[in-house]
Amino acid sequence: MSETVHQLSAALDPGSIAIIGASSDPNRIGGIALDHLARLGFKGQVYPVNPKYPELAGFRCYADVESLPAAPDVAVLALAAEDVLPMLERCHARRIGAAVVYAAGFAEVGGAGVQRQNELVEFCRRTGMQVIGPNCMGLANLQTRAITSFVPTFRAFPPDEQTGTLSLVTQSGSMCADLYVMGWMMNMRFRHFINTGNEACVDYADYLDYLASDTATKAIAGYVEGLRDGPKFIAAATRLRQANKPLILLKAGESERGSQVTESHTAALAGNRAIYRAAFSQLGVMQARHTVHLTDLAYLSRFLEGKRVGRKVMVASISGAMGALTADLLSAEGLELPVLPQAGQDRLLDIVPGIAMVCNPVDMTGQLFSKPRLATEILQTLLDSDLADVLLVFATGSLFERIAPELIEVATGSSCLVVMIATSGQPETHQRLEQAGIAVFPDAARACEALGSVVRRAGNAERAEYWHELRQAAMAAPRPAAPPPARGDEYEVKQWLAQFGVPVGAAEVAASPEQAEAIARRMGGLSAMKILSPDVAHKTEVGGVRLNIRPEDAQAAARGIEEAARAAAPQAELRGLLVQPMESGVGELIVGVTRDPVFGLAMTVGLGGIMTEIFQDVAHRLLPVDETIALDMLQELRGAALLQGFRGRPKADVQAAARAIAAVSRAALACGPGLTDIEINPLLIKAEGQGAVALDALLLTTEKTAK
Amino acid sequence: MSETVHQLSAALDPGSIAIIGASSDPNRIGGIALDHLARLGFKGQVYPVNPKYPELAGFRCYADVESLPAAPDVAVLALAAEDVLPMLERCHARRIGAAVVYAAGFAEVGGAGVQRQNELVEFCRRTGMQVIGPNCMGLANLQTRAITSFVPTFRAFPPDEQTGTLSLVTQSGSMCADLYVMGWMMNMRFRHFINTGNEACVDYADYLDYLASDTATKAIAGYVEGLRDGPKFIAAATRLRQANKPLILLKAGESERGSQVTESHTAALAGNRAIYRAAFSQLGVMQARHTVHLTDLAYLSRFLEGKRVGRKVMVASISGAMGALTADLLSAEGLELPVLPQAGQDRLLDIVPGIAMVCNPVDMTGQLFSKPRLATEILQTLLDSDLADVLLVFATGSLFERIAPELIEVATGSSCLVVMIATSGQPETHQRLEQAGIAVFPDAARACEALGSVVRRAGNAERAEYWHELRQAAMAAPRPAAPPPARGDEYEVKQWLAQFGVPVGAAEVAASPEQAEAIARRMGGLSAMKILSPDVAHKTEVGGVRLNIRPEDAQAAARGIEEAARAAAPQAELRGLLVQPMESGVGELIVGVTRDPVFGLAMTVGLGGIMTEIFQDVAHRLLPVDETIALDMLQELRGAALLQGFRGRPKADVQAAARAIAAVSRAALACGPGLTDIEINPLLIKAEGQGAVALDALLLTTEKTAK
Repeated sequence: MSETVHQLSAALDPGSIAIIGASSDPNRIGGIALDHLARLGFKGQVYPVNPKYPELAGFRCYADVESLPAAPDVAVLALAAEDVLPMLERCHARRIGAAVVYAAGFAEVGGAGVQRQNELVEFCRRTGMQVIGPNCMGLANLQTRAITSFVPTFRAFPPDEQTGTLSLVTQSGSMCADLYVMGWMMNMRFRHFINTGNEACVDYADYLDYLASDTATKAIAGYVEGLRDGPKFIAAATRLRQANKPLILLKAGESERGSQVTESHTAALAGNRAIYRAAFSQLGVMQARHTVHLTDLAYLSRFLEGKRVGRKVMVASISGAMGALTADLLSAEGLELPVLPQAGQDRLLDIVPGIAMVCNPVDMTGQLFSKPRLATEILQTLLDSDLADVLLVFATGSLFERIAPELIEVATGSSCLVVMIATSGQPETHQRLEQAGIAVFPDAARACEALGSVVRRAGNAERAEYWHELRQAAMAAPRPAAPPPARGDEYEVKQWLAQFGVPVGAAEVAASPEQAEAIARRMGGLSAMKILSPDVAHKTEVGGVRLNIRPEDAQAAARGIEEAARAAAPQAELRGLLVQPMESGVGELIVGVTRDPVFGLAMTVGLGGIMTEIFQDVAHRLLPVDETIALDMLQELRGAALLQGFRGRPKADVQAAARAIAAVSRAALACGPGLTDIEINPLLIKAEGQGAVALDALLLTTEKTAK
Repeated sequence: MSETVHQLSAALDPGSIAIIGASSDPNRIGGIALDHLARLGFKGQVYPVNPKYPELAGFRCYADVESLPAAPDVAVLALAAEDVLPMLERCHARRIGAAVVYAAGFAEVGGAGVQRQNELVEFCRRTGMQVIGPNCMGLANLQTRAITSFVPTFRAFPPDEQTGTLSLVTQSGSMCADLYVMGWMMNMRFRHFINTGNEACVDYADYLDYLASDTATKAIAGYVEGLRDGPKFIAAATRLRQANKPLILLKAGESERGSQVTESHTAALAGNRAIYRAAFSQLGVMQARHTVHLTDLAYLSRFLEGKRVGRKVMVASISGAMGALTADLLSAEGLELPVLPQAGQDRLLDIVPGIAMVCNPVDMTGQLFSKPRLATEILQTLLDSDLADVLLVFATGSLFERIAPELIEVATGSSCLVVMIATSGQPETHQRLEQAGIAVFPDAARACEALGSVVRRAGNAERAEYWHELRQAAMAAPRPAAPPPARGDEYEVKQWLAQFGVPVGAAEVAASPEQAEAIARRMGGLSAMKILSPDVAHKTEVGGVRLNIRPEDAQAAARGIEEAARAAAPQAELRGLLVQPMESGVGELIVGVTRDPVFGLAMTVGLGGIMTEIFQDVAHRLLPVDETIALDMLQELRGAALLQGFRGRPKADVQAAARAIAAVSRAALACGPGLTDIEINPLLIKAEGQGAVALDALLLTTEKTAK
């Protein structure tokens, strides 16, 4: 969608603005935006609307929206909640296509507020008006100075001549203002300031979609309590990624308590934290851990253009301790410090008398005090090694000032990302370094944490593109004919799954204990026997499972199972017994598909038993999951070593497990909207080359498909 | 030891200072300290020593140490490494009792430097001179301005009229300067600035011991690459804890790469990271994660006096988002947000029209803009609930300024620790809050991380006192008579361990396969049989173990074992076979004791098998470990749930396991200095009330005890 015709242009890039409920007090909610528009250089038309004044803030004031000389692009409603809908109707009658609604008192307060918001949604649907909010602090286009926000922050930190490239999109107004200030203090300037509020009509993803087309926006930092439309978010995040614009999000509700708060705060569903994390990572979105981390990631993103981004870091510091601590911090982020090859080490020993640390980190020593040119030679030696993706330089105080010109000289034209850590130093020096493409962080922990996130994101972005294509293909593929069995028992579910390639092993249904014995004898060896019923999800709990049964004991076992099940679940429909040969393997997986309320179908894979339950050692992905992604998931498990021939055990058939997981994904996608759960527990993995088999399977649907 | 007579007084609190190798250039290594002494108000005698000048920096200059009018308390040697020892001899001849040695070129460079350092150590031993360094940047007493350091930092950040209470003790000079600046920028002032360097004569712990007696020092922040004397450190840390002076340490070498760096840097052994962490926690030392965290902990420590420290936090913010994010951050630190009782919630609803979040976090709403007094009432309501150990207030910009007086009013006299998060705000407001006993952090993540550490430390400090008494008692206890068996086999080791209460189960030694069968028949049931040899540590690997043997198969099994062992380990001394009844239990532990090069004997406990190996789910403690501490260790394991009746399994006899662990500790302490390893693997834990039994045991000693 091209920028000029995007339906949000009227709100985000208006040529004319009406403030309805405009105030003469520049500190009141109806006066702040007007004041910004008057002072900060907006070149378009401004129409204050208030019957009490002939003029406000130097603009001619109008008695009502009907008497405006022309329809403005956007109307700002500085009105109480109960006055919002009637005024929107009047705006619509004046053919105003967009409005910003400040008022609280909608879905976030519950009760009557929910009803009011529903009416607002209905209004938008009917009229097509783009309504921002409600319960929001408004917007600011910091390039045109079209500011519809009542955030006073732009007074102390007004937009200046620097071009802003970072856009903020937050569900909280105070957070938007806070991020603006934090970014400003790190020399960042902004393109759009967007507080989305309750998102009754315009959704979080709509803004992202707009910004994907906005050429001036180079990166987006956002704060999210909950997303309302997962698929729309996926599409917008994909567009941003493909436009090479980093999307950096801080999600509240990462803890039990935090998520209770967010749900009550902006009426957004905090949702399943693990699925959010998985989705963000899968989409190449950077998830920040806290506000400073968010700001740092936005800051570092400015310096990535034209640089290679990778995990190999060369560190040069002005002391051994700083090198050692930085090595610790980088290692904790999973980054590597390649050892400088001997030739480079020899060169350092040559140029710096008495230098001790020459491997990486390199201690440039206090000799820089008297000979700052040494820094050029040391850093050039590190770059010449061609081993580094990142050059990280740690210097403080006066040494920082002294070697800044050397660093600029060395960094200019290098494809290496150059990052400086300076716990003190002049702001002017910071700016000079930044203009030369060098990121400057005030402390080592922040620099290393940001680097780690950026490097991981680079890997995620590649994988995200792969997944995107897979998803497109899956969405384009025709639906298979066979729906899942309604009220399916284990046998039926397995037969249905088998169509998609899920390995379900040999199994036969016995109508009677006698038949069970006959099947067991035909199979030979030990067998497993289970009650067959669509009504019993947990068969073990009703005494409905027996293992390691010898053929001669089969009939008695079958009878025992039936009696136990009948006693424990008298209402259940019993359909006989499932007889399977006993199987043994190297490992067990739990493979599950659930429907996330935000993102839709998601896959969970864990190693069976205690690993999943006690160590929460699981991997999550949105569907579709193919073999490649399934292998990634297995790799991600901390217990993965158990499948790789741990302590002399045989190696597990990981490929077969991945094929089975991919097959479960295909089956789930074929189910239609009624699917709520698939669980394969366990998926037995045999030794390498011997495959995998789903020993048990469960499929749950809502009434919708059961019909 | 009283402050005035402490042997380090001469160096740390000198009345007179000689600078040997004094320079006329205030930017050279021999000129900086002189310049500090001249400008910053040191009231004692200063003697520059340099034959070239009659006067330096306004002080009379002397040609050599022999011509000084009196012996100074401390001599600073601004000389090259090769000149150090001869000059120290001359200083000793002049009866100078302390010296600061700047020169590098000692143990940290290896080779001849090690030899030079050994000579220095020998000199100190012979003369009793207190030599600081070498390879150090010196000291500064910021109260008396007795500065022997060549760190130029005191120029830009000179000591002022504020009383310093924080002392810095670091093994790196640049880190000492960096921490000084970082602390200064957070309004902290310092008592002692100590850069320990190579610690050839005066050890890290010696400084800590001095500061324990220094009444002006209220807290210590330090940087450590490696400790040279664990027991001395334990004693000093204990004195500090008992004097209620927080000791906050940043340890480099937490990663593989970082530890390589530190070992080469100051010639200190980085040591076993896990044991360092355990020791710090066991001693009530706060271990910082990075420099900012270190500074934050020192900062927060200033506000703890007279406050209760606990995990319950009440949060009040000026926006819902800030509340939600803070709840996430606090939860991640293991802190709790108690729900405000109904009466308090009702009161908030009463006083703040339309307030939405009243449970905790409380959203004070933007109404504070016009009615800052609301803050007093809200915060007082939270304090009145009496549920909180900590009151955490989050406000930014102008709102921060507006409610600061209200916060001061509420905090004054409260036993609650009050912490403010303010991402922006005037420095004067910060200082006013701090003077009122309110800690102010510039961001939420830092505040929550520091709070978490301080709360954990409070718990650790209590446990530390318990352990200290246990350790004192163990050190006072008489050594038992029986030393561990030299070249002991499994049977002998178990019998020896049994004396201390380690449950070793029934086992008999068979000299021949026939005898093995007789024993097995007498025992009845299934038995386990193992080769008995002091030379075979890993019996399974030589085919020396068979399990689940029926009595009738015992003789053949025994013969098989002997043949396999003889074939696999022809040199090993075979002492027959160990026959045990098969045992089964609920869980298995690995219980090990190793000798750490720094801290001495340390205990490691993990759940058997993959939990220990793959998830590194282990707990460490320095010895002694009694039942109480052993229970703590078991509790600390993530897999602890497995012992508590997980998924319908029987509960394990955790008490018996703790008794066994405590017995292993007693045995290890009885071993004497030759012990290197004890390993019980597995310690089988049976169901509750049924005990535990060491199924295998290994004890390794150096030659020293084996004799």
